[in-house]
Amino acid sequence: MSELRKDPIIGRWVIVATERGKRPTDFISTKLKGETVSCPLCEGNENMTPPEIYSSRSQDTLANSPGWKIRVVPNKFPALRIEGTVDREGLGMFDKMSGIGAHEVVIETPSHDDILHNRSVSGIITLLETYQKRINDLQKDQRLKYIMIFKNEGERAGASLSHPHSQIIATPIVPKRVREEVDGSLEYYGYKMRCVFCDIIREEKRFGSRLVYENASFISLCPFASRFPFEIWLLPKRHMSGYTQMTQQETIELGDCLSMTMKRLAIALGEPQYNWMLHTEPNTLVPRNPWPDIQEHYHWHFEIIPKLTRVAGFEWGTGFYINPTPPEEAAAFLREVDVY
Amino acid sequence: MSELRKDPIIGRWVIVATERGKRPTDFISTKLKGETVSCPLCEGNENMTPPEIYSSRSQDTLANSPGWKIRVVPNKFPALRIEGTVDREGLGMFDKMSGIGAHEVVIETPSHDDILHNRSVSGIITLLETYQKRINDLQKDQRLKYIMIFKNEGERAGASLSHPHSQIIATPIVPKRVREEVDGSLEYYGYKMRCVFCDIIREEKRFGSRLVYENASFISLCPFASRFPFEIWLLPKRHMSGYTQMTQQETIELGDCLSMTMKRLAIALGEPQYNWMLHTEPNTLVPRNPWPDIQEHYHWHFEIIPKLTRVAGFEWGTGFYINPTPPEEAAAFLREVDVY
Repeated sequence: MSELRKDPIIGRWVIVATERGKRPTDFISTKLKGETVSCPLCEGNENMTPPEIYSSRSQDTLANSPGWKIRVVPNKFPALRIEGTVDREGLGMFDKMSGIGAHEVVIETPSHDDILHNRSVSGIITLLETYQKRINDLQKDQRLKYIMIFKNEGERAGASLSHPHSQIIATPIVPKRVREEVDGSLEYYGYKMRCVFCDIIREEKRFGSRLVYENASFISLCPFASRFPFEIWLLPKRHMSGYTQMTQQETIELGDCLSMTMKRLAIALGEPQYNWMLHTEPNTLVPRNPWPDIQEHYHWHFEIIPKLTRVAGFEWGTGFYINPTPPEEAAAFLREVDVY
Repeated sequence: MSELRKDPIIGRWVIVATERGKRPTDFISTKLKGETVSCPLCEGNENMTPPEIYSSRSQDTLANSPGWKIRVVPNKFPALRIEGTVDREGLGMFDKMSGIGAHEVVIETPSHDDILHNRSVSGIITLLETYQKRINDLQKDQRLKYIMIFKNEGERAGASLSHPHSQIIATPIVPKRVREEVDGSLEYYGYKMRCVFCDIIREEKRFGSRLVYENASFISLCPFASRFPFEIWLLPKRHMSGYTQMTQQETIELGDCLSMTMKRLAIALGEPQYNWMLHTEPNTLVPRNPWPDIQEHYHWHFEIIPKLTRVAGFEWGTGFYINPTPPEEAAAFLREVDVY
């Protein structure tokens, strides 16, 4: 069983995932793994994954057989497990907690080569709807304080399988980075009585220089204090604290905005590897929500970070990032791309 | 001129380093740079670097000529520059500041292949003394609120030159990560009237399972809530808030502890790439120090993080780390190494 451990100085939690089974000797040879002959995420190999939690498939097909458009399965090597209770324990001066949570894999498409930036918009919309369904389902479990959806595209971005997939990890505590963002938006709201993200959208439309793409409901932009070259945020124009509050029409427009943004990035930089993270409100069904007004001050969004530079000692030591490309230059470059 | 920009939500500062000159097109080809024919950091190539700020050299040699043991030079492509004033400016809702600071390169040895874990202990001690001298010198500049010393070893760790070197970046604000650590130690001190790092040392000696190496004055260990496999901290046993408070005898013992720890890491894992960061107190010569009792509650140390895993979307989105190797296993593996 994995465990959660707390750093006694800054309060950062770490998942020590013993079940993922990296023994010390596994690191000695650092050769890259080749692709296995059979991809466990491809159509026809459904028996190579744990049984599916959710799928979108033709009505005449059975679960865990071919005929699906999208599948969600438990991670075979989960960082956190759904079974058990949240047990807390002190170990001398240290604090730990049992590794309860969920770890799921969203298999985005049956086809191994159906890379996101070339995928049909309808395929992307199916993915975005699946994210909504999984959040709605996982939120019912009140042990799960936060549901993080993310995508690692490419080996440098941390992916161990090349078949298009995203991941969902639900944690028994609200992570530090999420707390900072929610607290930051609350502080701004307390001072100005406005949402900081709504203000950012307004300001960026006024400046124009950091915009990447825009449609009726969504906007993508390179943020003012981008940590990385070509960092992109994608925000709904309507104020919404949670991803599941999106309407069907908005989901369609998010599909368009995400598709157009990812195409531009892929064309401009030659299909860079990247991470994306969905930043949405913590589970609001949890009793004693520490942010009773979160619907007023928080605003969900995606953050996309291409893997173009290395994070080095300075960043690790300070939390300060050095970005060699001003976001205005990155955004201008992305706007100029001819999208086929 | 570089500029510092502040994220309006969580208050994180970023250095947008326009002078480092990464144009968007520089990222299109991601081929690795080969080593240049002539290494600018090697002995004999002193004219390839900016003029030296400090060197330890034979008395009969001139500055910027051969005959040195260690050289400190300004970074040719600095993230921050020493010239100018700290100008602050609002840009609509956003905040920025001029990129004032220092960025130096410590050329650790004249010989290109004199890698740290094979270097003589006396060579390592010279390096550690040089760090002290540079901090003492840079602290006199009251614009510099923090002096961060770090080492990127290997391309995956962010190094762009393979000649053994470390870097110094002095910033006009105390970075977020440093503030969190100092504030965390203050909170613990306020509650227990003890230093949290001194307590960690005491606890780790009692447990024993996470210790790596120990001599009279220093200890190295894999921390309880290690973010990464084989993460190692190296702490002075005597309570000291600042690196420059170390005595000469302690510097010698730090050289031994660092050498023995890095040898173990290199032998155990086959010379992994790594970052190390010196965590010391903010510049105490700055007026209106926000931590008047810092000498009581803060405790300087090194953090060493081998590059064995990739930081992926989950970590970026949450600030939560998944570590697949328990620190007890990593420490046991390092203790068992036969050091030649």
